[in-house]
Amino acid sequence: MELLAQFGHYARMISIDDIKNAYQTIHREVCQTPALRSETLEAPYAAEIFYKCENLQKTGAFKFRGASNAIAKLDDAARQKGVATHSSGNHGAALASAAQLKGIAATVVMPETAVASKIENVRRYGAEIVFCEPTQKSREETLAKVLEEKGQVAIHPYDNEHIIAGQGTVALEVLRYVPDLDYLLIPVGGGGLLAGCAAYARAAYPKLKIIGVEPAGADDAAQSLARGERVLDVVPDTIADGLRATIGELTFPLIKENVDDIITVSDEAIRKAQFEVMDKLKMIVEPSSAIVHAALDVLAPDIKGGRLALVLTGGNVDLKDWPWAAES
Amino acid sequence: MELLAQFGHYARMISIDDIKNAYQTIHREVCQTPALRSETLEAPYAAEIFYKCENLQKTGAFKFRGASNAIAKLDDAARQKGVATHSSGNHGAALASAAQLKGIAATVVMPETAVASKIENVRRYGAEIVFCEPTQKSREETLAKVLEEKGQVAIHPYDNEHIIAGQGTVALEVLRYVPDLDYLLIPVGGGGLLAGCAAYARAAYPKLKIIGVEPAGADDAAQSLARGERVLDVVPDTIADGLRATIGELTFPLIKENVDDIITVSDEAIRKAQFEVMDKLKMIVEPSSAIVHAALDVLAPDIKGGRLALVLTGGNVDLKDWPWAAES
Repeated sequence: MELLAQFGHYARMISIDDIKNAYQTIHREVCQTPALRSETLEAPYAAEIFYKCENLQKTGAFKFRGASNAIAKLDDAARQKGVATHSSGNHGAALASAAQLKGIAATVVMPETAVASKIENVRRYGAEIVFCEPTQKSREETLAKVLEEKGQVAIHPYDNEHIIAGQGTVALEVLRYVPDLDYLLIPVGGGGLLAGCAAYARAAYPKLKIIGVEPAGADDAAQSLARGERVLDVVPDTIADGLRATIGELTFPLIKENVDDIITVSDEAIRKAQFEVMDKLKMIVEPSSAIVHAALDVLAPDIKGGRLALVLTGGNVDLKDWPWAAES
Repeated sequence: MELLAQFGHYARMISIDDIKNAYQTIHREVCQTPALRSETLEAPYAAEIFYKCENLQKTGAFKFRGASNAIAKLDDAARQKGVATHSSGNHGAALASAAQLKGIAATVVMPETAVASKIENVRRYGAEIVFCEPTQKSREETLAKVLEEKGQVAIHPYDNEHIIAGQGTVALEVLRYVPDLDYLLIPVGGGGLLAGCAAYARAAYPKLKIIGVEPAGADDAAQSLARGERVLDVVPDTIADGLRATIGELTFPLIKENVDDIITVSDEAIRKAQFEVMDKLKMIVEPSSAIVHAALDVLAPDIKGGRLALVLTGGNVDLKDWPWAAES
C-alpha cells in the first residue's frame, strides 16, 4: 500500500467545472490529439469507432495533461521549491516536462530497474533522478527523504484532484469532436484518467455508457466496483505495465459514482489487440492502450450500430522489445 | 522499361486548377490526415517540422487520393467494364478500394512473390487478383491480356494525369494547414506524388523550396534532374520498396519545372530514420516514408529556424518483419 499521506491529497469530488477549468489552464500546452477511425478495424463490429490518440500527446501519453494542470495550480512557494514524485513510467516524464516548461525544478524517484528508455525520457526533460530499490517501500522512503531535504511538493500520479481534472480533459476533447457518442472506453490502472473522464462525461452527456477496461491480472478496480469498496490486496500480473497500480482513494468514489461497468481482458487478448492497432491504425501503442481495443470483443453483441470512442493512452514502448519479435 | 502505351497516358501538363478540381472531387472520400510535430524530433534541427501523416490515409498510403480521383473521372463506358493495373504494393490496394466504393470492378495483376499482407489488402477491397511471374515483362503481358479480355481501363500508378492531380492534394492540405512554409520534402519513386505536389505548391507559393528525396540505391530521378532528361537504366537496390519505380514520362517534366532539388539518402540512414519516427512520433511508417526524415541530416545547415513539412507517405509494413527485430 502506498503512503498517500505524503502526497497531501484532497477529499472533495471533482466536478465538470474543475475539468473545464483545467482545459482553460492547459489547452495551449497540450496537443489536441486526433480521434481516428479505421474501416478495417470497425468492420467486424458494425460500429463507428473513434480512437483518441493520446499516444501522440506530448511525452507520449495522456499523463502530460494532468501534470500540466498540477504544475499550473502550484502556489508561489511551491514554484520556488519544485515538485517531486516516484514513477517508473509515464507520469515521471510528464511531470518533468510540464515542470521544465514553466522553469520549475522536478525530482523523480525511479527504481534502479526502470527501463532505460523511460529513464532517458525523464532525463531529457531536465528532471533530477534519484534512484531507489525496486520496492514500494524504498520508493516511498526515498521520496519522503527528497520531500524533507528539498521541501518540494509531491504530485501523486492519480490521487490528486488537479491530476484527475487534467486527465478529464481527454473526455472533454472527445465529446466536443464526436457528437452523439454511445460508449466511452477507458483503461484503468490507478483510475485517474477514468475518474476524470467519467466525471466530465457523466455530467456533460448523462446517457453515455462509460466503461473502464482493466487487465484480468490486475482487476482490483473491477473487484472494488463489484464489492462497493476498494480492494487493495490484488497482486498485479499483466503485460500492461501502465495498469498495475491500485485504484486510488480519490479516484474510486468518482468511478463508483459515474462509471457504468468495468470489464476485464486477458493478456493474450491485449497482445492481439496491440498487434491489430499497430497493423491497421498505424499507431504505436502500449499494451495499456491496446486493452480498449481488446474490449470490443467483449462488448460486440451490444455495440452494433453504435458510436464508440476508445482512448489510446500512450505509445511509450521499447521498439527493440516487441512482444511478437521473438515469435517471427 | 514499362509499356506505358497500354495505360493510355496524356501529354499535357498538370496545373494548380487540376489539383483544386481533384480535391473538390475526392475530399469527401479521403482522410484529411493530421500534420504532427514532435519537440524531440525538432530539437536537433532548431526548426519547426510538420509530419504530414499519409500513413493514416485510407488503405494506409497517399495512393488512395490519386486512385479515387482516377476512378471518379472514368466515363460511363469505363465504369461498366472497370479498371485494371499491375502492382505489388500500395497502388493496387488503393485502386481496389476506390473502385469498390463506387461499385466498379477492379483487377490487380500481382507477382506471385508479392508479400502476403499486400495480397490480403487487395483482396479485402474486393478486387480480382491475377497472378503473374515476378518480372516486368510478365506483369505487362498479363495486364495486356486482362485489358483485352475484359475491356477494362488501365490506371497507371503514376503516369496518369488524374493520379498526379489526386496526389497533389497532399500539398494542398499541407499548405492550407501550415502557413509560411519554407521547405516541402517528398519521397520520389515514379514521381506521382512529387510531381503533383510540386505543381500545386510552386503555383500556390512560389518562394517555397520543394525537395524530392530518393534512395541512393534508386537515384534515377536525381540523375535525370542533373542530366535534364530521364535516366532509365538504374537498377534499383534499396530497402525502400515503394521507391524502386523509374521516374515517369509525365511526372519528370513537372518535376524538372517545379522542384528545387532532389537529394539522396543511404539505406542505413533510412533505417535509422524509420526507427526514430516510430520511436518518437509513435507512427508506423514504411522505409519509403522515413526517407524524408533521413533527409533532415543532409539539409541541417540550411533549415535552422525554418518551417518544414515532410510527407510520410505510407505505413504498410509487415510488423513481424521489422528491420531491427533480428538485431535485438
